[in-house]
Amino acid sequence: MKKAVVLLSGGLDSVTVLAIAKAQGYQCYALSFDYGQRSQVELQAAKRAVKHFEAVEHKILRMPLDDFGGSALTDTDIAMPAGGEQETEIPVTYVPARNTVFLSLALGWAEVINASAIFIGVNAVDFSGYPDCRPEFINAFEKLANVATKSAVEGEKLTIEAPLMSMTKSQIIEQGIALGIDYHLTVSCYQADEQGRACNQCDSCYLRKVGFEQAGVDDQTHYYQ
Amino acid sequence: MKKAVVLLSGGLDSVTVLAIAKAQGYQCYALSFDYGQRSQVELQAAKRAVKHFEAVEHKILRMPLDDFGGSALTDTDIAMPAGGEQETEIPVTYVPARNTVFLSLALGWAEVINASAIFIGVNAVDFSGYPDCRPEFINAFEKLANVATKSAVEGEKLTIEAPLMSMTKSQIIEQGIALGIDYHLTVSCYQADEQGRACNQCDSCYLRKVGFEQAGVDDQTHYYQ
Repeated sequence: MKKAVVLLSGGLDSVTVLAIAKAQGYQCYALSFDYGQRSQVELQAAKRAVKHFEAVEHKILRMPLDDFGGSALTDTDIAMPAGGEQETEIPVTYVPARNTVFLSLALGWAEVINASAIFIGVNAVDFSGYPDCRPEFINAFEKLANVATKSAVEGEKLTIEAPLMSMTKSQIIEQGIALGIDYHLTVSCYQADEQGRACNQCDSCYLRKVGFEQAGVDDQTHYYQ
Repeated sequence: MKKAVVLLSGGLDSVTVLAIAKAQGYQCYALSFDYGQRSQVELQAAKRAVKHFEAVEHKILRMPLDDFGGSALTDTDIAMPAGGEQETEIPVTYVPARNTVFLSLALGWAEVINASAIFIGVNAVDFSGYPDCRPEFINAFEKLANVATKSAVEGEKLTIEAPLMSMTKSQIIEQGIALGIDYHLTVSCYQADEQGRACNQCDSCYLRKVGFEQAGVDDQTHYYQ
């Protein structure tokens, strides 16, 4: 049976990706990161998704990205921007090299378990401002992966799967519901409280809300403000 | 003044790279990893090198590569091979995706401090068996780095510098001595003891010994056996 490492934050996108990988017949090895982000409750959501979609294994790695700073997601000195504002620059919520680091660690695990794919929930529609959410980034990483490892040198091809790349948030939600996701169990907010309630203000809350509205689906997110 | 992140294990190669980066006029930000490797004393050697070559800052990140296993360097269930044996396959001391992970984290730091280069001590002569020590790997990572980050999107070019790539061990030692390195302070052994004494058996000890002999330099390495 083919194996995949699935990067799983516990947010709406990555949980949908886990469901897609499973539906494609992969044995899923879920990989989450505790990188000092504000929203620790995401990891609880990741655990629920792992259980629901019967991943073979779930690793949560502590990543020291917050040691470097430079992002509103890990550095509380940087103000969290409000959602829905038209941004002309790369958002301050961008974490330096985050997806490069996550994919690299996924690559290490993929090699050890002999997986043939890594799944990642990047999306160029809503996150066009993030350099490491673009197709050219994913393509460059796939090229790197195929010269970086022992398995690659021995001729085993690894693919980086980004099934959400060209989907809108509402398309992602529709796909996920068709695959049996209870989105009530996912957390999207950049600054959710300890009960998993959302702020109703950040960019991620905004995109989620618009997505559910456009999909015509009732979102049961609880807000603390 | 131009800045560089320098990957620094504390071994002979990476200390030489730090000296080279400094000689090329870079302000050096040294990055070391504690990845569950057997030879913790390497990190002490890294600290000595940072002091000697006046790096601006030194970060030591705990990396969970040992969670994945699959290498004799991190997994004590895998036997350490003896040095000098002709290997036809990739050595068991290869750590899955190690240099990919290290370069990714260096990239995150490089972006935050606005560095224009990352230095890494990979070498294709002695380590031709390691897929992530080859020029094609370094080239693929450089391409990735230049689409992965905010700085890249904004037009700032980052280079991956691997100055030892085509050098023999004795050439590296000669270069390092010319730049003022006291190699007595470096540790190469894969299984050094707590006093920094080497095993005199592993591949790394073997390569070091041959390198010093060929360079005609007295190596003051202490061995515990």
